[in-house]
Amino acid sequence: MENFTFQNETKIIFGKETELLVGKETTDYLDTEKLGKNILLHYGSGSIKKSGLYDKVIKSLKEANLNVIELGGVVPNPRLSLVKEGIKLCREKEIDFILAVGGGSVIDSAKAISAGVHFDGDVWQLFETMEPIEKGVPIGVILTIPAAGSESSWTSVVTNEEKKRKLHFRSPWIRPKFAIMNPELNFTLPNYQTSCGASDMLAHVMERYFTNTKNVDFTDELCEATMRTIIRNTPLTLKNPKDYNPRAELMWASTIAHNGLLNTGREGDWSSHMIEHELSAMYDIAHGAGLAIVFPAWMKYVYKHDIQRFVQFAVKVMGVNKNIDPNEINLEETALAGISALEQWFKDIKMPVKLSEININESKFEEMSELCAKDSTVGCFVKLNKDDVTEIFKLAL
Amino acid sequence: MENFTFQNETKIIFGKETELLVGKETTDYLDTEKLGKNILLHYGSGSIKKSGLYDKVIKSLKEANLNVIELGGVVPNPRLSLVKEGIKLCREKEIDFILAVGGGSVIDSAKAISAGVHFDGDVWQLFETMEPIEKGVPIGVILTIPAAGSESSWTSVVTNEEKKRKLHFRSPWIRPKFAIMNPELNFTLPNYQTSCGASDMLAHVMERYFTNTKNVDFTDELCEATMRTIIRNTPLTLKNPKDYNPRAELMWASTIAHNGLLNTGREGDWSSHMIEHELSAMYDIAHGAGLAIVFPAWMKYVYKHDIQRFVQFAVKVMGVNKNIDPNEINLEETALAGISALEQWFKDIKMPVKLSEININESKFEEMSELCAKDSTVGCFVKLNKDDVTEIFKLAL
Repeated sequence: MENFTFQNETKIIFGKETELLVGKETTDYLDTEKLGKNILLHYGSGSIKKSGLYDKVIKSLKEANLNVIELGGVVPNPRLSLVKEGIKLCREKEIDFILAVGGGSVIDSAKAISAGVHFDGDVWQLFETMEPIEKGVPIGVILTIPAAGSESSWTSVVTNEEKKRKLHFRSPWIRPKFAIMNPELNFTLPNYQTSCGASDMLAHVMERYFTNTKNVDFTDELCEATMRTIIRNTPLTLKNPKDYNPRAELMWASTIAHNGLLNTGREGDWSSHMIEHELSAMYDIAHGAGLAIVFPAWMKYVYKHDIQRFVQFAVKVMGVNKNIDPNEINLEETALAGISALEQWFKDIKMPVKLSEININESKFEEMSELCAKDSTVGCFVKLNKDDVTEIFKLAL
Repeated sequence: MENFTFQNETKIIFGKETELLVGKETTDYLDTEKLGKNILLHYGSGSIKKSGLYDKVIKSLKEANLNVIELGGVVPNPRLSLVKEGIKLCREKEIDFILAVGGGSVIDSAKAISAGVHFDGDVWQLFETMEPIEKGVPIGVILTIPAAGSESSWTSVVTNEEKKRKLHFRSPWIRPKFAIMNPELNFTLPNYQTSCGASDMLAHVMERYFTNTKNVDFTDELCEATMRTIIRNTPLTLKNPKDYNPRAELMWASTIAHNGLLNTGREGDWSSHMIEHELSAMYDIAHGAGLAIVFPAWMKYVYKHDIQRFVQFAVKVMGVNKNIDPNEINLEETALAGISALEQWFKDIKMPVKLSEININESKFEEMSELCAKDSTVGCFVKLNKDDVTEIFKLAL
C-alpha cells in the first residue's frame, strides 16, 4: 500500500423527497460561511422542467429567501462556451453559491464556472495546465443521473468545442459542499442513459482496480464489492425503471465509485478514460457508451501485463470459474473469459462494445492517438504510447 | 434502504513516517481557522515515550512554533476524572487545539474534554442525556492502535469510575479534524492488544451488518468486504507483527469500519456493545476481549430472528458452505456453523470467548442487565429487555 491522504467533506443527503431540503441546506451553508444569498441555478436542456423538479427546487429556494439567477442549457460533454458565460454571469451578479441540478455534465460545468470566477486568466488554461486555484465559488448539487460521481469528486471534465479537446481539471475548491440524491429522480431516465451511467461508474472502479500497487487487499475488496453491486443492480433497474431499490443501490455505488475511497493507497490507471475522452471530443458520443467500447479493448491489449489481476477480476467480479480450486485454474483462459463476460454484460445492458456499432471507422485513429498520448504516454498500469493507443482503437473496431 | 445523511470530513493522512507531519498539519488547521497556538497534548501511560513517538511529536510541534501543554495518564476505559482535569486545564491555558496521541481511549478522552470545555454543566451530564453542544475544541489525532475507529468517528465512550458506568456521547463537534495513521507505529503492540483491536473493529461492522433494514445490497457488500479483510489480516499480523502490509490493511479497515459509511441507509443493532460496556465498566476488562465473549452469545440468542442474514454471514464472511448451491443449504446448520466459525476465529487470535475464561461468574448478571436495559430495551435487530440480556450473559458463561 502506498502512503495517501484522503478527505471528502461533501455532505450526502440521500433518499426519498430529499430535493425538498435544498433551500434549507443552501441557507445553512451560506449562514455558516457568512455568505450572501445570490444563487446561480445551473441546469441542462430542460428535462428538469418536464419532470417537475425545477418547480420544486425554485419553490424551496424562494421559501428560503434566496435570490435565484438561472443558467440552463448544459449539454452532455459540457461546453467551454457556456462555462465562460457562467463565469461572466457570476461576476456580474456577485454569485455566492452555484446550485447544479442535473447529472455529471451539469455538475462539471458548474465546477468549471466555480474555478473560473476568481481566476484572472482564461479558464481553459486551468484545464490545460492544471495550475492550482486560490478560491472557488461553493457548489451544491441535486443529482439526477447516477454516473459520473461528480457530486462528491474534485474533478471537472469540460469540452473545448472549438479545439475538439476534452480535458479535466481538479481542485479541492470545486468539490461540492452537499449533494442531494433522491433515486426517485432517476425513475424517468431512458434506459440508454441508465446504462451509460452504469458503464461510467463501473469504469471508475476498474480504473482504480487495475493497478501495479501491491498489497491492496482492503481496497481490492471494496472495489470488488462496488463492481458486483453495479453489475447486479443495473439489469434490475433496466427491467423495472421505477423500482426504488436497485436505483438506490446504483446511485449510492456511483458516488462511492468516484469519491476517492477506492483508490486510497493505490495507483490508478485512467488510460481508458483518456482514450475515451478523445473519442467523445471528436465524435460527441456519450461517455459511458465510449467506455463500454474502449475498456474491453484496453483489457485485451494489456491483460498479460498482470494476468493474475485479470484472473482475480474474472473470478471475484464476473463470477467466472468461481467454484474451481484456484490452483486448478487456467490463468489465460480465465482472464480472457472475464473480459468476455464483461463485454457480454455491456451487451446485455445494450451498450455498444465496438466502434463500428456507432459508425466510427479508423479514419481519425492516428489523430486521436496523437492527441491522447502526445509526446508522452497515458496510463499507469501499462504506459501506452500513441502506437499502443492506435492498436487499442483497432481492437475496438 | 432508508434515507440517510452522510458526512465525514476527517482528513486521513496515512502511511509511513506520517507522524512527522503533525506540526505542519496542526498549524495549517489553526491558520485556516484563525486560531491561536496553544495545544493540549493528550496521551496515555507513557508507551509513546518508550517508543520514541513522543520525542518526534514534540519536535514537530516545536518546529511549528506551537505552545504545548501536556496531559498524559489516560488508561483503557478512559476515566471521567482525567476528563475533568483536562477540561480545567483547557480553560486555564486557553487551549486552541487538542492533539490526541494514542489509541481509542486517548482519543475518546480528548473528545470528552473537547465537548466539556465550552459546556456550562458537568460533562457527565452530556453522556447521560446526549444533549447537543454548541461548540467543541478542535481535535487532531495520531493513532497508535487500530481498533475503536474513534479517529474519524463522532462518538466518545467514557467511564465514570465512581458510578461504574460506561456511557457514550456523540456530536459533530468532536469529530477529529485530521487523523495521522502510520501502521509502523503498531509494530510494537503486544499481540493481545492487536487482537483486542481486531475484535473491536470486526464488532463495529457486525453491529451494522445485523439489521432489519431490507434492500441494503451495496452496504452489505461493503460490510462483508471489510469483515473479510479484518478476518484475513489479523492472523497474518499476529504471526509477523512487524510486517507493514497486513498492519496497513487492518489499520485502514478499522477506520472505515466506524466512519459511518457502512451504516448508510441501514439501521444498526449495537446491543452487543451496550452489553459489553456493562462488563467493562464493572470489571475493567479490555473492550475487544469483552466483545469476543458477548458477540457470539448474542448471535446464538437472536439468530432465529433472521436466519437468512446469519446464513449470509456464514457463507460470505466466514466462508462456510460457500461452494454449495444456496438452494441446497441447510439454513439452521449453516447459520450455527457461521457463529462457530467466528468463535473459532476469536480463539485462534487468542481472545477469550467465555466469561469463565476471564474469571467472571454470574454474581453481577442481574445488576448489569438492569443497568443495561433499565426500564427499556437495548438493540434494534432484536429489542432485548433485561431478562434477555441476562440470558445472553448466561450463554457467555
